[in-house]
Amino acid sequence: MNTYGDKFRLTTYGESHGLAVGAVIDGCPAGVSIDMEAIDAALKRRRGGAPRQEEDRIEWLSGLSDGITLGTPIAFSIHNRDTRPEDYAHLEHLFRPGHADYTYYMKYGVRDHNGGGRASARETVARVVAGAIAMQLMPEVSVRSEALCGRSKVADDTVGGMVRCSVTGVAAGVGEPLFGKLNAALASAMMSIPSAIGFEMGSGFAAARMKGSEYIDRWNSDGTTKTNHCGGVQGGITNGMPIEFTVAFHPVVSLPQPVECLHENGSLETVSIGGRHDTHHIERATAVVEAMTALCLINYML
Amino acid sequence: MNTYGDKFRLTTYGESHGLAVGAVIDGCPAGVSIDMEAIDAALKRRRGGAPRQEEDRIEWLSGLSDGITLGTPIAFSIHNRDTRPEDYAHLEHLFRPGHADYTYYMKYGVRDHNGGGRASARETVARVVAGAIAMQLMPEVSVRSEALCGRSKVADDTVGGMVRCSVTGVAAGVGEPLFGKLNAALASAMMSIPSAIGFEMGSGFAAARMKGSEYIDRWNSDGTTKTNHCGGVQGGITNGMPIEFTVAFHPVVSLPQPVECLHENGSLETVSIGGRHDTHHIERATAVVEAMTALCLINYML
Amino acid sequence: MNTYGDKFRLTTYGESHGLAVGAVIDGCPAGVSIDMEAIDAALKRRRGGAPRQEEDRIEWLSGLSDGITLGTPIAFSIHNRDTRPEDYAHLEHLFRPGHADYTYYMKYGVRDHNGGGRASARETVARVVAGAIAMQLMPEVSVRSEALCGRSKVADDTVGGMVRCSVTGVAAGVGEPLFGKLNAALASAMMSIPSAIGFEMGSGFAAARMKGSEYIDRWNSDGTTKTNHCGGVQGGITNGMPIEFTVAFHPVVSLPQPVECLHENGSLETVSIGGRHDTHHIERATAVVEAMTALCLINYML
Amino acid sequence: MNTYGDKFRLTTYGESHGLAVGAVIDGCPAGVSIDMEAIDAALKRRRGGAPRQEEDRIEWLSGLSDGITLGTPIAFSIHNRDTRPEDYAHLEHLFRPGHADYTYYMKYGVRDHNGGGRASARETVARVVAGAIAMQLMPEVSVRSEALCGRSKVADDTVGGMVRCSVTGVAAGVGEPLFGKLNAALASAMMSIPSAIGFEMGSGFAAARMKGSEYIDRWNSDGTTKTNHCGGVQGGITNGMPIEFTVAFHPVVSLPQPVECLHENGSLETVSIGGRHDTHHIERATAVVEAMTALCLINYML
Repeated sequence: MNTYGDKFRLTTYGESHGLAVGAVIDGCPAGVSIDMEAIDAALKRRRGGAPRQEEDRIEWLSGLSDGITLGTPIAFSIHNRDTRPEDYAHLEHLFRPGHADYTYYMKYGVRDHNGGGRASARETVARVVAGAIAMQLMPEVSVRSEALCGRSKVADDTVGGMVRCSVTGVAAGVGEPLFGKLNAALASAMMSIPSAIGFEMGSGFAAARMKGSEYIDRWNSDGTTKTNHCGGVQGGITNGMPIEFTVAFHPVVSLPQPVECLHENGSLETVSIGGRHDTHHIERATAVVEAMTALCLINYML
Repeated sequence: MNTYGDKFRLTTYGESHGLAVGAVIDGCPAGVSIDMEAIDAALKRRRGGAPRQEEDRIEWLSGLSDGITLGTPIAFSIHNRDTRPEDYAHLEHLFRPGHADYTYYMKYGVRDHNGGGRASARETVARVVAGAIAMQLMPEVSVRSEALCGRSKVADDTVGGMVRCSVTGVAAGVGEPLFGKLNAALASAMMSIPSAIGFEMGSGFAAARMKGSEYIDRWNSDGTTKTNHCGGVQGGITNGMPIEFTVAFHPVVSLPQPVECLHENGSLETVSIGGRHDTHHIERATAVVEAMTALCLINYML
Repeated sequence: MNTYGDKFRLTTYGESHGLAVGAVIDGCPAGVSIDMEAIDAALKRRRGGAPRQEEDRIEWLSGLSDGITLGTPIAFSIHNRDTRPEDYAHLEHLFRPGHADYTYYMKYGVRDHNGGGRASARETVARVVAGAIAMQLMPEVSVRSEALCGRSKVADDTVGGMVRCSVTGVAAGVGEPLFGKLNAALASAMMSIPSAIGFEMGSGFAAARMKGSEYIDRWNSDGTTKTNHCGGVQGGITNGMPIEFTVAFHPVVSLPQPVECLHENGSLETVSIGGRHDTHHIERATAVVEAMTALCLINYML
Repeated sequence: MNTYGDKFRLTTYGESHGLAVGAVIDGCPAGVSIDMEAIDAALKRRRGGAPRQEEDRIEWLSGLSDGITLGTPIAFSIHNRDTRPEDYAHLEHLFRPGHADYTYYMKYGVRDHNGGGRASARETVARVVAGAIAMQLMPEVSVRSEALCGRSKVADDTVGGMVRCSVTGVAAGVGEPLFGKLNAALASAMMSIPSAIGFEMGSGFAAARMKGSEYIDRWNSDGTTKTNHCGGVQGGITNGMPIEFTVAFHPVVSLPQPVECLHENGSLETVSIGGRHDTHHIERATAVVEAMTALCLINYML
């Protein structure tokens, strides 16, 4: 499933080491002037200090005329410029620990050893472009996130961490009950990001340890509340307070040290994985968290 | 949105204080002999020691013949037998703290003060019936959960907690990449349960604080792993290890003590909410967690 | 697939010779007072002079309070009261010509010889109830159809015919381009009716034989047109003229004369099919055509 | 709605007079060697003798490696090379008769006077590419269509006609009952083609005039039938006979003679429309009918 959303529908395409990555956005309203610099800024933040430093040049294939949306599908492609599949040649028959090599193989019956294909974080570039467009359709909304490294960095190892996100400017009454709850949709959107391993609204796991009288957010007379333990959503619908949630990311699984891989023949083999990988990804993850937040919200607000 | 799933599609109906609650299940294969006692056992567990003690008698409207599925939609209804809308009369113009009263009103513009309507946990009875049927379509799969109270119970107050769930018997290769990740679908399914406020796979938030070399699950030569920090899912697809996740639930928000409500006219009013409510709900929540787990999984496994 | 629509979603259930037929409607707005007599009138028209004369008594399970919609799913059931599966006992190993016996068996691998199960026209009763509700959400719209028998009736045989439908009161601008064209959705809705075998907008097949100068509908200065060859839809979107289309129905396939059936063992066997069947169905079909028209339109107009 | 299908999902993009048209195909299985010459042949047939003679050069952006599908989304673009928006300058404030100018304007509130945008037949190029790929996933299936001009061609005018399509090689048992009927899906697919105005299965409208004893297709002992009035589908599911249907197309609405247009100010103005247009389109339509047939079928057969 390469499509996200039902009103503002993002369909992404492209293999990490193929010709291009990109997407088609269906459902973007007409007449919106797109701020290209905002898109570039989001892309730059996503690149972070990543070893594979491609400048992402977007080719707009349809849906825009003079930078203004036509209401028709917006298609774009970003050519991959720095692919090195040879970095992965030695992994042809190995399954790396912590990666999706093995699970993809068990599902599809074919190996994709050369750099991750669609499972690679490269795919998130299309999400960031689409998220930056979605953001511009909601000028009253502000999405801000900060990155919390899970621990101090150490040589020859990797780290994970958490991203805390706060959304202001969303009126009360946005969301759906039952299976369409906004918090459920946010959870799904965040858990679809590579390396995401946990999600909580507001006080989250800490709330599970509170007494009810500590937890419930007490009213102010204007309908705001004195605390925001619930994270701004009740019964799946916003209450007008900031939407607050936290996403946990496990550490980067491509370690800068030799690891034991599983060979297709069942033997274990210690190799250096190589390729160009971050030892930390939390700062870069904020760009993707914000993009997915915008993509999630716009589907409720259109 | 009252429908869950795309292959085994559950559409639930019924207001908490209306005539009946129930559902239609579309997509259940033909020829399956349904174990009615297993359904009753799940319903009994869901009822727990709940103050509103209705025995849930299921009327099967279609889709079964002599207890065997026909492949046609399975429709059932459970009549509500112990409704007391008068318990809620004094709340007609008040918004309770921590509840969805206010957010529903802000979305729909109408009050539903008498007992929650669709937002009530009463709706989960239909999920539990459907989940018990889904479970029977996967006899090789075992779903087990345990309830962890967030803190010891105290008089005049309520508690929350966590449900840890472990699923065994799911082969490697189940799931989808990108936006269809199994872990994302589980997150959404769990966060759709009333009071759910957090979700994590495997080591979850604790994994965010590990080094990569601590986190990655090392191989055994048979494709299993020595640890299961990832919770049995990598890249959105199962690796054959148990699927393990934890759901955090905030405390019950109907407190057995007077609380300050917001009146529609903007004044604050301290009232006893009344109605019949639990002071804890974690044990009952396990039945719903297991049902939603089954409903989530069956949509990947059919 | 037992669900129709994406905004006003109808999910029908029930076997022809089971306990009940019915449906859940999800997406009906709150606060609409339902005219029960209009529903009964539509049901009566659907029954026509049908041999199986059941009065259709609707049990409303949810979604209504004092006849007013709550915005929650509307569930209803209609108990079957005059089933005679024994009428079909002699068909247990036979495939009737012209029926769906054979195709269902080839798809599902099981026989449903006793009266059609879900393939029976009995299922349309739920569509007619839902269509009558949909109609009441569009009081400005009028749907009228007339029945044209394909030929004069003859003893010991059956006839088909056509239903011409005209919808007035739909403003210009309703529909979608590309794959969401209103005319495509109407075609699908009509072809989903049992026995439907053809569909045309406006002048339809006759238009294929016109010159372009004869076909194009010439303007009046108010935006209406002097003719309506296109049937009120251009590029998938209404132009404000009446929406006009015709549905062709093949003759009733249960003949009141012996027919040659295919036995499961490959022999041919001449039998009288029995059961209670119409020799004509066009007048009854108007009720279903109008219901499906309303269900199709409401999904574009909500 | 620019997406067709739920398993083999085609999302098309591109304006007729923009930079490019193209599509993303999601759901194509891995490991299929694509015959590029078959795609080019279908594109050539679609171009026919069309005045706007662009050779359609496909740029494959993703999803293929050495001409073999990867199982990932297949994205492609075809650059537009011969656009002349100036041909349409004089139509800026006019609505052409028979076109979708007016209905688009009434829906979207903006004019798209320069060549049709997404309503243009140019968009069908992406359908033909995708259909040719779908066809290659069903090598046992053969789709053949023939074009029947509605009348002899005349100077200064246009003609329409019918396309008869016959599909062989589809086993019995393909389709769905109720709202998922194969004949309903084919009707929708065909009516989504520009200029389509009628659809019938098998004997279609002629069947409406038969007696039942003439209509029902009599068995051979091998499960085939002596006639095929039903067009190979019963109860929404194939019976193993050829799937036969006919699509009616109204005449080309861009006449090679002056026509009376409606000015936005309500006056009527006689103009020559210009642009480059066919006077007949039936032969070209066969390529699109076959493509949509393949796209419809593959969604039932995957």
